[in-house]
Amino acid sequence: DQSVGALLEALKGVLESNDTRRFCKIPKGTRDLLPEQMAIRERAFAIITGAFKRHGAVALETPVFELRETLTGKYGEDSKLIYDLADQGGESLSLRYDLTVPFARFVAMHGFGSIKRYHIARVYRRDQPHMSRGRYREFYQCDFDIAGIYAAMAADAEVLKVLTEILDELQIGDYEVKLNHRGLLDSMMDICGVPGSKFRSICSAIDKLDKEPWEAVRTEMVEDRGLPPEVADKIGTFVCLRGEPLELIEKLTAAGSQFSGHSGAKLALDDMVLLFKYLQAMGCLPRFVFDLSLARGLDYYTGMIFEAVFKGTSQVGSISGGGRYDNLVGMFSGKKIPSVGMSVGIERVFSIMEDIERAKSAKIRTTQTEVLVASLGPEMLKARMEVCAELWSANIKAEFIPKASLNFNKQVSFGLDQGIPWMVIFGEDELARGEVQIKQLTADASESDTPLVVPRERLVEELRSRIGTTSGLA
Amino acid sequence: DQSVGALLEALKGVLESNDTRRFCKIPKGTRDLLPEQMAIRERAFAIITGAFKRHGAVALETPVFELRETLTGKYGEDSKLIYDLADQGGESLSLRYDLTVPFARFVAMHGFGSIKRYHIARVYRRDQPHMSRGRYREFYQCDFDIAGIYAAMAADAEVLKVLTEILDELQIGDYEVKLNHRGLLDSMMDICGVPGSKFRSICSAIDKLDKEPWEAVRTEMVEDRGLPPEVADKIGTFVCLRGEPLELIEKLTAAGSQFSGHSGAKLALDDMVLLFKYLQAMGCLPRFVFDLSLARGLDYYTGMIFEAVFKGTSQVGSISGGGRYDNLVGMFSGKKIPSVGMSVGIERVFSIMEDIERAKSAKIRTTQTEVLVASLGPEMLKARMEVCAELWSANIKAEFIPKASLNFNKQVSFGLDQGIPWMVIFGEDELARGEVQIKQLTADASESDTPLVVPRERLVEELRSRIGTTSGLA
Repeated sequence: DQSVGALLEALKGVLESNDTRRFCKIPKGTRDLLPEQMAIRERAFAIITGAFKRHGAVALETPVFELRETLTGKYGEDSKLIYDLADQGGESLSLRYDLTVPFARFVAMHGFGSIKRYHIARVYRRDQPHMSRGRYREFYQCDFDIAGIYAAMAADAEVLKVLTEILDELQIGDYEVKLNHRGLLDSMMDICGVPGSKFRSICSAIDKLDKEPWEAVRTEMVEDRGLPPEVADKIGTFVCLRGEPLELIEKLTAAGSQFSGHSGAKLALDDMVLLFKYLQAMGCLPRFVFDLSLARGLDYYTGMIFEAVFKGTSQVGSISGGGRYDNLVGMFSGKKIPSVGMSVGIERVFSIMEDIERAKSAKIRTTQTEVLVASLGPEMLKARMEVCAELWSANIKAEFIPKASLNFNKQVSFGLDQGIPWMVIFGEDELARGEVQIKQLTADASESDTPLVVPRERLVEELRSRIGTTSGLA
Repeated sequence: DQSVGALLEALKGVLESNDTRRFCKIPKGTRDLLPEQMAIRERAFAIITGAFKRHGAVALETPVFELRETLTGKYGEDSKLIYDLADQGGESLSLRYDLTVPFARFVAMHGFGSIKRYHIARVYRRDQPHMSRGRYREFYQCDFDIAGIYAAMAADAEVLKVLTEILDELQIGDYEVKLNHRGLLDSMMDICGVPGSKFRSICSAIDKLDKEPWEAVRTEMVEDRGLPPEVADKIGTFVCLRGEPLELIEKLTAAGSQFSGHSGAKLALDDMVLLFKYLQAMGCLPRFVFDLSLARGLDYYTGMIFEAVFKGTSQVGSISGGGRYDNLVGMFSGKKIPSVGMSVGIERVFSIMEDIERAKSAKIRTTQTEVLVASLGPEMLKARMEVCAELWSANIKAEFIPKASLNFNKQVSFGLDQGIPWMVIFGEDELARGEVQIKQLTADASESDTPLVVPRERLVEELRSRIGTTSGLA
């Protein structure tokens, strides 16, 4: 009957509209960047790239996917998070998990003996996303690495110097950089009586200390990873050691300290003494904390390791990390090229910068347009195009609204909304006389200021002198 | 016996070294970009981004993969080239095939009524690679699109204007832009007697005319795609029509032309008349050729289409293409947002720019370092770091070589090799006196010029005035 027919018809409408819309979404853990977010991102990248270039780094690019074997056996427990491509015939491929392993493969493949490079690109991890906390499945990393045989700890110190320059310039809050050494961690485990075969596994447990209390980590060590309770307790006495670098190193190297008789610990502490000396020479030592609980999750580190975190805020997790990895290049070429590097996890930085901008409640400009070409009266589209083309030729950033007939106020509103500082205005009459008007476009000046009338042939010149002025002030 | 043992040992060595090295390669059809290539790429991107921003476009970013359904049914015969991700639990994902479909999904999902955006990013196609001809499986596209309801052909004209600005500024050779209209192609097929169901299939055949002679395409139409020979021959009389836009359009719109009585053709020709008028107003019409053989492979175009090619060189294939696609956004949201855009295939542009640079045989600088901080005498590493840190604080791009002891000539060679214009030099004695030397570093001046001695506290100031000068001249 009729009502059933109408119901079916309505149901069909719902289904069809679902059908149209259900694919209008994006993969879990990813996001689009909107124009306002891109504007902030560009500002952050400019600061970061500026620091990398200031230190003489070259740029390079690698494919977004690698042969699966390139990534296998490099990341320890995290390897399960790697994205694989489907087998469509041909090679087995995986999306890059970080920029460090591709860099090591690059150095080995192209036979570089030394290189200082930066790489800003997205990496992929099938992790549980926490979008509100800045944890995505696709996210940017900004990496800076120095590969090559150099004086002990000199490249390490420069990497850390670059990191402090970036975090200072971004002005996103007070931070500290935790420092430790894989050699010191291994020695500490050795001193405590952890068997060598359990070093990496216990290291992974220690790595959780930034998120979990010691009691929880101790339980994991004893119950899940099979460590005798007294060994775990001894580790507990070490991992609470943290402090100002020069103070703590003096304590650890003092005669009678538990490390002083251990040859591995001695070597690692020598490294740290040198590192602190260089950081002091470059004026950034106050940013660092020597922290024996820092472990880093990844397998490939071999020496100094670090992680930058925010101080005393609700912001959790690290904003940057890195360390020395002397054996990674050799895993590809057989030729050992010692390397050290860092990665800034820029998604968190973006979130913080966005919060700061929102708090200012000022509108973020998403274009750089300097001039809006506007007309009075109907049918002036072609004339607007002609004037715009003249400005583009002079490398002036200009726009017209591509509508056939426009009222003048709509053009003013568009200009104000977009934050465009200048307007060029004309009607049939002005054009016939060979004249145009120039008008500054600010919210308060939009009504009052009298436009300046200039001859058409002097338009570019007049605009140039004015744009220079406003850009200089901005 | 002994020789067999030695042989086995040698064989083992070979196998082990293969084992180490066999993963030191990258996926088929992809490439790493080396520092020199990155320097050229950055130059090209600066020109392209500059043009996009000059026209008021905003930037945006989308994920590298999309839900598989987002891409399904958008590319016609080329869909088989899409890279799928493995099923690891969760959604079915594919790498983006172009930037246009993700843009349409973006516009629909975020509810934009109009937007002018650019997007420079890599896309993925499981095509047969031809690396020497610039055809890769992973390659950059530089896209510029205008979505929104605007005056007929006004946005189309601006897209084409941007394209000519970019190709002019890149200075990579003489080019022409072929123009046609999907409505005109469809009308032409209708006039020739092609059944509507075969339009897209015959269109794909016509698309091959830039690579194959008419005879081969005619054979494909008749034998593979089942077109009666007399229909194919009639198409042959149309697709040879090409010429200067205003001349050809006059011929086609003249009373008695085959198009004049066809309503679809009439609408398409009206579009083209308007387009040519606007291109003329913006001063770029001489770059265009009206070419009835241009078809474009992708399914989604609905109006004006174009392709830029090099003139009279061995360079084959298009360097840019695009057109109007009024129905793509609506496929995601159900709401029609007419759109038009273009894509510059930048890998070919890179190849040409690299050839031009190679022909100049000048070394390409891969860093922007302005000052090399060098020392005389042993054990000066910490002092070099201190001076470098001072320069970095002043935002001067500076490097030191991180070796413990260095002879002076090695530092000069490094600076010359890297093209670093200035050197700061000191030994123990100068530092004790509170002095440093500044020296210009050019291949011919390296021996002769006397270095300038300046007080340490005036170093930044003295360098700044000099760096300003050389940068200004460069």
